[in-house]
Amino acid sequence: MKAVGVIVEYNPFHNGHAYHLQAAKETAHADLAVAVMSGNFLQRGEPALVSKWYRTKMALLSGVDIVIELPYPFATQKAETFANGAVSILDAIGCHSLCFGSESGEISTFQKTVDYMDLHKDCLDEKIKMNIKTGVSFPKALSLSFQSLSSTENLLSLDKPNNILGFHYVKALKKQKSSIVPFTVKRKNADYHDEHFATETIASATSIRKALFAPTGNNSSIEQYVPDTTSTLLKEYLNGYGNFHEWENYWSFLRFRLIHSTPLELREIYEVEEGIENRLIAAALESFNFKEFMEKVKTKRYTWTRLQRICVHILTNTKKAEMSGTLEKASYLRLLGMTRRGKEYLNKNKSQFNLPLISKLSAYKENDISLDVKASRVYSFGLGKQNGNILLQQEFKQHPIYVER
Amino acid sequence: MKAVGVIVEYNPFHNGHAYHLQAAKETAHADLAVAVMSGNFLQRGEPALVSKWYRTKMALLSGVDIVIELPYPFATQKAETFANGAVSILDAIGCHSLCFGSESGEISTFQKTVDYMDLHKDCLDEKIKMNIKTGVSFPKALSLSFQSLSSTENLLSLDKPNNILGFHYVKALKKQKSSIVPFTVKRKNADYHDEHFATETIASATSIRKALFAPTGNNSSIEQYVPDTTSTLLKEYLNGYGNFHEWENYWSFLRFRLIHSTPLELREIYEVEEGIENRLIAAALESFNFKEFMEKVKTKRYTWTRLQRICVHILTNTKKAEMSGTLEKASYLRLLGMTRRGKEYLNKNKSQFNLPLISKLSAYKENDISLDVKASRVYSFGLGKQNGNILLQQEFKQHPIYVER
Repeated sequence: MKAVGVIVEYNPFHNGHAYHLQAAKETAHADLAVAVMSGNFLQRGEPALVSKWYRTKMALLSGVDIVIELPYPFATQKAETFANGAVSILDAIGCHSLCFGSESGEISTFQKTVDYMDLHKDCLDEKIKMNIKTGVSFPKALSLSFQSLSSTENLLSLDKPNNILGFHYVKALKKQKSSIVPFTVKRKNADYHDEHFATETIASATSIRKALFAPTGNNSSIEQYVPDTTSTLLKEYLNGYGNFHEWENYWSFLRFRLIHSTPLELREIYEVEEGIENRLIAAALESFNFKEFMEKVKTKRYTWTRLQRICVHILTNTKKAEMSGTLEKASYLRLLGMTRRGKEYLNKNKSQFNLPLISKLSAYKENDISLDVKASRVYSFGLGKQNGNILLQQEFKQHPIYVER
Repeated sequence: MKAVGVIVEYNPFHNGHAYHLQAAKETAHADLAVAVMSGNFLQRGEPALVSKWYRTKMALLSGVDIVIELPYPFATQKAETFANGAVSILDAIGCHSLCFGSESGEISTFQKTVDYMDLHKDCLDEKIKMNIKTGVSFPKALSLSFQSLSSTENLLSLDKPNNILGFHYVKALKKQKSSIVPFTVKRKNADYHDEHFATETIASATSIRKALFAPTGNNSSIEQYVPDTTSTLLKEYLNGYGNFHEWENYWSFLRFRLIHSTPLELREIYEVEEGIENRLIAAALESFNFKEFMEKVKTKRYTWTRLQRICVHILTNTKKAEMSGTLEKASYLRLLGMTRRGKEYLNKNKSQFNLPLISKLSAYKENDISLDVKASRVYSFGLGKQNGNILLQQEFKQHPIYVER
């Protein structure tokens, strides 16, 4: 059985994801699809709209066969670390290929670019440093440096978010000497960051979330952009748990954490550097909500995303010391769900996996999963007390979601 | 001008307090009364019912002339430390006498007992250690040891809460070589811990708070036990700030702090010892409210009060390292309010105070007040967002309350 891997957040699963998944299976001639999916907190430093269990169910009902959680140390990270973790999981679970969406759509361009960057690494690092000194953010500095270096080489445009991610997937495959074959599918229509609906059936997850959170918003306005199963599950979550998760639900706790901490304590938190701790505390004292807080803290150098990631690490109390040494490869495979076909694949191949496969958290006592546990505990605070506790218990007792398909 | 000192919480100010205050001024032949009053969090490890500003106003309107805040490192503490701080403030502000309520009512018994305990210190310490080994709490061990030692000496009953406090006041006066003369007034009727109304006009603060928080409770049920000014100010607080402060308002934040901390981090918190951190985390994960949590954590050795104090220190993130060396004497006089007569006294005498007198927090930048600042920040989380922020701003901008009397 040939498995194609995809790296996803499904926040929530929509028609664009379904299209990509179909294309991935066809392009890679795969018998099944394995998704590495972020858990509670996402790459942009945001809580997932609904729990990983609901997002797993959406995925399984719409074409994915196995869902593995991308552990916290990789999920809320810059593209390079995110890619390291995700690729290591797909490799450990025996995927034959990896398929990702990109603005470019040409896999050869990715490979050429990775090789070129390896060759010119020193020169590029030098340029990045110089650009950072002008006060721009890291992603911007990388993009500028790369442009100036590669303008005549017909390489990848590294100012597009999905190109950047894809570049890091291909780079991670090379670094980890994986035998996985990468493919890319040109993204259809919607830009990653689009806040508005772009076409009749495909819209970005950003625009879908925006509609879900809009004051006048109701579920029906997104129905044309998501499979029926997603729509049903979103309604079920809202009815069952009372609300979707967004930063504002966590604001009081973030603020509380900031105002009772000293700058010295905050500096122990992963990614807190350069005196940003003082800005964070001062802004927390004066802000009524998360948005207001973020606007007070934001600078040219600190992108919104970078700040949100910092805030997630503060919320989960994740220390620099806890993260060091965990950022190259994943150390376990946490199974969130599977279809009948996925189960068959796992039964046939799991003896050869080089990482432990965890089906139920309460049966796995290793320390390396503690960051995921903490993230789940904190994530549960985005709901009311009763519902938060239900979600928290689920984290420990839930068996992998099974879908007969 | 002769000033008599009283050591108070006024949570809230009631008729018993008014009686004591009157008796104090008369017994000590004083021209005015100075109250050292706990700020945000109290000796039993509870948030004060209403802000220190409202409690200051109640005090000034009912006979107190100067209110000084007892700093956080002394306020949420066992009797000995509490007394050290309070007595050092009364001494620094030039009080001539100290008057406290007690079950005993005989000041000579207090002095005799303090002297006797000094003489038999080693023997007593030995007995306390032995009693603690049987698993009882420290106050209980002290009381038992003392009884066995002193049964023939006609000394103080140290199993009464106000006798214990008074004993420590007299002991602190002796230790600090203060020239303050102690008096005691026999307490009328209501026991400190009484949960029920005892007489027609005097009731314990505990029973008054109980009535205020009762589901069917309304202000009128307490009116016969408090001065009109207290009653009016309580109503005003409730209307202005939306609610009184109680532990349940802070429960989510305490729980959040507990579930995102490691046992190792919690062990850095003042008073967290002997593995209680593990019990606290485990109970937090499974509890829906503060009461349920406390019942899960409580043991024979850990009294409810001791546990609540630990919880306050966790909430305010007060480390062992921050408290060491601050527990013998206060280092500043934070003026919360004064009457005309109080102002006159301060103007006449302040040049001789051996501690800085702080009228407005924003004008005082010393580090030693940082624990009070943190406590105020945390205390503000007991109100809704808007009102909490108003209270927090007040902490920095408020001038001492002035009452023309």
